[in-house]
Formats: sequence, C-alpha cells, structure tokens
Amino acid sequence: MSFEPPFFQINYKLYPDTWGEDGLEFAKTAARVADEFGVDFVLSPQTADIRLVARETDLPILAQGMSPHEPGRGLGHILAESLREAGATGVMMNHPERRETAPELETKIRRCREVGLTSVVCVENYEFGKAVLEWDPDWVVFEQPELLGTTTSLNETDPEAVERFSELVAERNPRTNVFLGGGISSVADVEAALELADATGSASWISSDVPVEEREETLRAIAEVLAEA
Amino acid sequence: MSFEPPFFQINYKLYPDTWGEDGLEFAKTAARVADEFGVDFVLSPQTADIRLVARETDLPILAQGMSPHEPGRGLGHILAESLREAGATGVMMNHPERRETAPELETKIRRCREVGLTSVVCVENYEFGKAVLEWDPDWVVFEQPELLGTTTSLNETDPEAVERFSELVAERNPRTNVFLGGGISSVADVEAALELADATGSASWISSDVPVEEREETLRAIAEVLAEA
Amino acid sequence: MSFEPPFFQINYKLYPDTWGEDGLEFAKTAARVADEFGVDFVLSPQTADIRLVARETDLPILAQGMSPHEPGRGLGHILAESLREAGATGVMMNHPERRETAPELETKIRRCREVGLTSVVCVENYEFGKAVLEWDPDWVVFEQPELLGTTTSLNETDPEAVERFSELVAERNPRTNVFLGGGISSVADVEAALELADATGSASWISSDVPVEEREETLRAIAEVLAEA
Amino acid sequence: MSFEPPFFQINYKLYPDTWGEDGLEFAKTAARVADEFGVDFVLSPQTADIRLVARETDLPILAQGMSPHEPGRGLGHILAESLREAGATGVMMNHPERRETAPELETKIRRCREVGLTSVVCVENYEFGKAVLEWDPDWVVFEQPELLGTTTSLNETDPEAVERFSELVAERNPRTNVFLGGGISSVADVEAALELADATGSASWISSDVPVEEREETLRAIAEVLAEA
Repeated sequence: MSFEPPFFQINYKLYPDTWGEDGLEFAKTAARVADEFGVDFVLSPQTADIRLVARETDLPILAQGMSPHEPGRGLGHILAESLREAGATGVMMNHPERRETAPELETKIRRCREVGLTSVVCVENYEFGKAVLEWDPDWVVFEQPELLGTTTSLNETDPEAVERFSELVAERNPRTNVFLGGGISSVADVEAALELADATGSASWISSDVPVEEREETLRAIAEVLAEA
Repeated sequence: MSFEPPFFQINYKLYPDTWGEDGLEFAKTAARVADEFGVDFVLSPQTADIRLVARETDLPILAQGMSPHEPGRGLGHILAESLREAGATGVMMNHPERRETAPELETKIRRCREVGLTSVVCVENYEFGKAVLEWDPDWVVFEQPELLGTTTSLNETDPEAVERFSELVAERNPRTNVFLGGGISSVADVEAALELADATGSASWISSDVPVEEREETLRAIAEVLAEA
Repeated sequence: MSFEPPFFQINYKLYPDTWGEDGLEFAKTAARVADEFGVDFVLSPQTADIRLVARETDLPILAQGMSPHEPGRGLGHILAESLREAGATGVMMNHPERRETAPELETKIRRCREVGLTSVVCVENYEFGKAVLEWDPDWVVFEQPELLGTTTSLNETDPEAVERFSELVAERNPRTNVFLGGGISSVADVEAALELADATGSASWISSDVPVEEREETLRAIAEVLAEA
Repeated sequence: MSFEPPFFQINYKLYPDTWGEDGLEFAKTAARVADEFGVDFVLSPQTADIRLVARETDLPILAQGMSPHEPGRGLGHILAESLREAGATGVMMNHPERRETAPELETKIRRCREVGLTSVVCVENYEFGKAVLEWDPDWVVFEQPELLGTTTSLNETDPEAVERFSELVAERNPRTNVFLGGGISSVADVEAALELADATGSASWISSDVPVEEREETLRAIAEVLAEA
C-alpha cells in the first residue's frame, strides 16, 4: 500500500454508483488497470466503505475526512485510529466542501502523524500554503475552490501559479509532495497536471461524468499517462 | 434486524477498545447475551466499522451520524445510502456533541425516511421536542446535555419531566418512540429509565467506565432488566 | 417604533454604500419617504450601525443577526440585550446566509421574548415552517434560498405555495405574521408580495442594484404601494 | 488612538454591566485612569457598542470579532469596513470562544490590512503560532484555552513556554507583538505578564469578578504597573 508519486486519485465523493458494491466494483476495476500498467491509483471511497475496499484491493486509500478528536467522547465523529484500522493510508483535510477551523487543521495533521496516516491538506492559495507548510503535512493539494466541478483546471488557467507554489513547497518543506486538483476533466489535463506536480486526481469527472461502462477505458488512458510520468 | 422497544443502546462514541477488532468483540459479546436472554441491544459503532459489525452480528446498528447531503458533490460527508448499504438500521442526529442546523435536521429526518433508515433525534427540552415532532421522527432521545458523561440520569433528577415529555409525544405523534438518555450509569438507571421510556442506553458508562473484561457481566445484568421490561 | 404590517424591509446586508454615514443617509431618506406617505419601512443595518441609525431616525430596526448566548462568557458574539439597548426592535434569524443549529434557533426565539425583541425567523419550506411555529415566533419569513439575489420571486413562481404557507400559519399560530422574501426586485413584486403576505422586503435589489441617487425615487414608488396595501 | 505596547486590554465579552450605558461608563472610567497615569487601556466592547465608546473616549478599541466577507451579500455578518468606520482600531480573531476556519483566518488578517485595522490573532500553541506568523498579523495573543476564565495564568504555570513563544515571534516576524492572555486575574498577574510580553489583558476578572464599584480602583492598580512596564 504505497502512497508514492506519481498517482491519480479517484475521488468518489458522494457520487452515484460509487458506494457499497458499486464502489467496490469501481475499486476492482482501478486495481486491475493499475496492476496491468504498473501504476498507482489512490481511492477515496466514503468512510463506511473504506474497510470493504481495503480488504478487496491493494490500492492505497485516502479517506475523505477525519475528526481532530482523541479517543473518548464525541458522537458521530471519525477517529484517526478507526480509519487506520479500517485500512486507510491517508486522509484529506481542509477541502472547500468541508472546512476545518485553524486549530483543528493543525491537530489533524499531528493526529495523522501519531497514528501513521498520510496527511493530505487542501490549500487554495500561496499565502495559505506558507502557513500550512509549517505543520509539516505529507501532501498539499493545490486547488482553487472555484474550479471544483468545472472542466477547467489550474494547469490551463494559471500554470505559473502552480510552478510558483511548487517552488514554495520545495524551498520550505522539500519532503512535502504537491498534488494538483480542481477541474481535472480529461486525460490531457492529467498529463499537464503531472508535468507540474507529483500527483493529480478527480472527483466530478471520473466518478460522475464518465459513465460506469466507460470507467475502465478512461482509467486505462490515465494509466498510460501515469506510466510515462 | 428489528429496532423495536424495549432495547438498550451500546453507544461506542470514540471510546478506547470500541473500534475495529475491539469493537467487533464488544458487538459479539452483546449479540451472545442478547440471544441468550431474548432481548435487543442496539449498537452504535463508528462509521468505518458499521459494515464489519453488521456482517458479523445480527443486532441492529444505529449509526452515530449522517450528513443531509443527496448523492453528488460533498467531500468527507456521510451519505444516507452508504450507511444503509453498509448495514445500518438507523441514525442518531442532533446530539449535543454534533449539532446540526435546523434545516439540516429536517432534511436528515426526511432522507432517513427515503432510504429506509430509522431516524433517532436527540431533544433536550420540551419546547424543542414540540417542533421536532412535526417532522415525524421515528424516535426521540430525551437527554439533557449537562448530564452527558455524568453518573446522574434524568430519571433520578426529574422523572416528572420525562413523563411530561412522554405525554407530549403520545399526544402529538403516537407512533414516535421515546428513548431516555444522558447519565445512565448503572443497572438501576436502566431499570428506572425503562419504566419511563421505550428504550435507553449509554456511552460513557458501558463503553468506557466498565472494564473490557466486565462488559459481558454488565450486559447480562442489563439483559435481565430488559427481559422483564 | 412600531413593527406592524404592512411594511417593506430595507435589508442592507453588507452591500456597498450601506454602512456608516452612507447607511445613515439611506435610513434618513427612508424615514423621510415613510413619513410623507404614512407608511413603514423597516431597516436592517449592520450591527455596528444600529445605534447610529436608531438615534437619528424613527423607523423600526430589524437587526441582521444575534447570538443565542446569555450574558457572560463568549467573545465576539452578539447579545440580545446589547441589540435592544442599541435600539433594535427585532432580529432576523435562520437566514440561509447564516444558519443556526436547531437548539440555537429555539433559544434565540425565547431570548428575543425575554428582552423584548421581535423574532423574525426565515423558513424555507412548509415542513420546516410547521416546526418553527411551535416556538411561537413573531414573524416567519417565507423565502426560498435559491431565489436570493435573483430577480425572480416566489409570488411569480409559486403563489400557491405562499397561500398554502399562509394558511398553515393562520391555522397553527394566528398571531404570527408572514413576511415574503427572496428575489423581490421590482415595485410590481412588492405589490404582488403584499397581496399574499403581511410584509416584504429586499436586500440585493434595494441596497445594491438601485443606484444610490435613485434610492429615494424607488422608495417613493414602494411607499405608494404600501400606502394602498 | 494608538495601539502601542505596553497596554492592558479590558475585554468586555458578554459580561453583565458591560454593554450600552454601563459599558460606556466602564470605558469612561478607564479613559480617566489612563489619562491620569499616562498609560493605555484597550477596550473591547460588543459590536453594537463600538461607535458609542469610540465617540466618547479616546482609548483604542479592539473589536471582539469580524467576518471575512467582502462588501456584498452576507446577512448578519460583520464587515471590516463597518468596524473601521464605527471607530475600531483592531480586531481579535481565532479566539477559542469563536473559532474560524483556516482560510477564513488568513482572509481576515488580509482584510484588516486592507482597511487599516490592527489584526490580533489568538494562538494556543507553538506549532500553531509558526503558521499564523506566515500571515503577518500585527499581534498574536498567546493563550491556552483551558486557562480561560480561571485564576491561573500562563506566566505562573509555564513561563518558559511564553519565553519560547516570544523568541519564535522575534525570530520569525519581529514586527509582530506578543500579547499574553488567559487566566490573568490579579495585579500581580499583570505585572508578571508584562515582563514576558508586550501587552496583556483580561475578561472574566476585570469585567466580571471585580464589582462595578471597584473597577476604578482595580484599573488604577493596573495603571501603576503599566506605567512602570
């Protein structure tokens, strides 16, 4: 269960045909393609499906979210330890669709470190990135909220911003990897993104716009790009 | 997988020795005792463990929480459909440790109805109960936030408040069941609670204060009370 | 400082030319027109401007928001008592741009009653209205979140929904008044809204789309409608 | 209206006898003592009272809170521009009693800079401080949430932590000042705090525990310490 660059994240979010048995099928398809091409897909199923997907495939799992809580009180929250034991490799945090308070974010990165989860923090601009790097996350996702769910990606609109961001990360915290997200909606986007960053991925495109019966074909095209990155 | 009164809820919250394999052991112990006494325990493991517990035991599962979202966008949220397919029977909502906005709460009760989950809504006072009953929840948990985690329960401090609340429910929405929570911390509390309400349960006592090796013994004592309720 | 139907609310929100001295000018213009036509405008300036507007005009002030807190701890929150003493007549709550948790909402309505403020609760659908009416608010604003900031109002898209909602209020809590909001963007909308409800108002139209120099003229046209309602 | 070290902040929070006319009296008392001793008190009245206090005294006002919003939509929020025009000098943010999301916090510091307000950011530990300093706030308040409202302050429990924190600030962002808060509840605490930091202040002690009729006497004792700091 490596979590090494380059990879492509298949972010299920809450899209139809991605939970329960459907999500498992999606995961198995991805695992088959990954195996054939010798590349890595990272899967982000819903919390209730992490164990199911982890048991049935070898791909790393990046949980969609987590709570900052320590073991103890707290109804309805998601404990780092429970994700780890269910089979997650890492956790996304600070996504525009689920913001955290600033002290929570610092705590979550620390909690991931404590329990052995990879921390993946969404960052929307250069200034915000500078602060987050002080907390030593494993990955930062550079992603502009306004591009989410669109077919326009940052590698198209502002590749210089991505380069400038990558330089910041390289200078401030070289061990941190850069993931480019937001608006990735074609194989060409994947290719362009992987030239600028260590990894990329998609939710609305791969989990929603691509019909279920074309998932494998699309994943194969992405795998070809990954194999050459 | 019934969800019929009377029952005792074993609320795991985030307490040590309640997630992953430890949580499964706890569930199996409860299932064994329930089977022996012919009573119902309802289990509330963490989200990532619902499928595991559902597959290995026959007890009904009351998920600790859920999001109001419809299928689609929304990273890190918990979809009603994913809980249902993982094996949950119902969902707790509006707990003091995880509040929802008022429109979210109305949406969640409706979403439960749509996907076939039992809605269980925490209510902290009479006035709030009157409003929640308009949304036709399956269960209301009458619970005072200040008693949570204590060893004092409402049946001790104010049994009249419980009776008055139960009368409200019976009059306004007779099909809704009443669950009495908050500070249940002994077998005597369970007995007193079940005289006033359709069900009861505990988190801090049963999942935390009772040592792992005494869980079975305590559950057996509770089962005896349930069998006579 | 009455707060009697019919009236038109001038909701400043955070729009340019509505705070500080600009907001006071706007208020004075409204007061002059209201006086001339013998009608009521209700003003919603920002919190920091309530006392300024209250001292310089006689129009009722409906605060944009409030916290559920009691006197005591709580940095950065807005106490009911402080709004009352600053000159507010009432408070808006549960607006889609500032949701509250369900227990907070019940508390806020009660706090308003305690300190002598008029409670004005935004409600987005019939089902939610049924619950809110149990808390005996003084006003309910029937407003669909998706129409906010548009030029389409509910009296155009679904007048039957408004009628059905008004009947609900009349039956369940006759003393509660109905305010129709969302997408009110012309004098014709004001007229149509006042045929269906006790009051109406606007934010984006009156405080933003109408140029500062045309505010008086527009308010005069609204006042004519109010005078005949 | 300077905001220069050293000073003592009188944080009203929502305590009784601190809003409206009572709050103004408190402010006038502080202004009189400050004037007599040639020292600075900084006042934090509630939002609705900022203009009142600013008009009647010369002391700098540190608003209790603000929203990250730009002018435009957003009901019930507090715009930076409205605070500035009402007479505020600066704004507190990220207080444990009113957390913000991480992107909001970065935005608020920037918004303060844009409109000419002093940004004062609460920071609860060393790691969090490192990140916040990247956003170039004017002041950081070093304060442990668990000491709030107690009579134990950090200068007593862990002066080394304060020194280490001050060194961090001096090294990373020398222009940023350090404010020491949390549990300041005696004149001796004020004295000790000012040896370790540029400023200090109190809410529960000065605005609540000290009886109204002893406010002046207590402020005079604090002013003596300030005059020698």
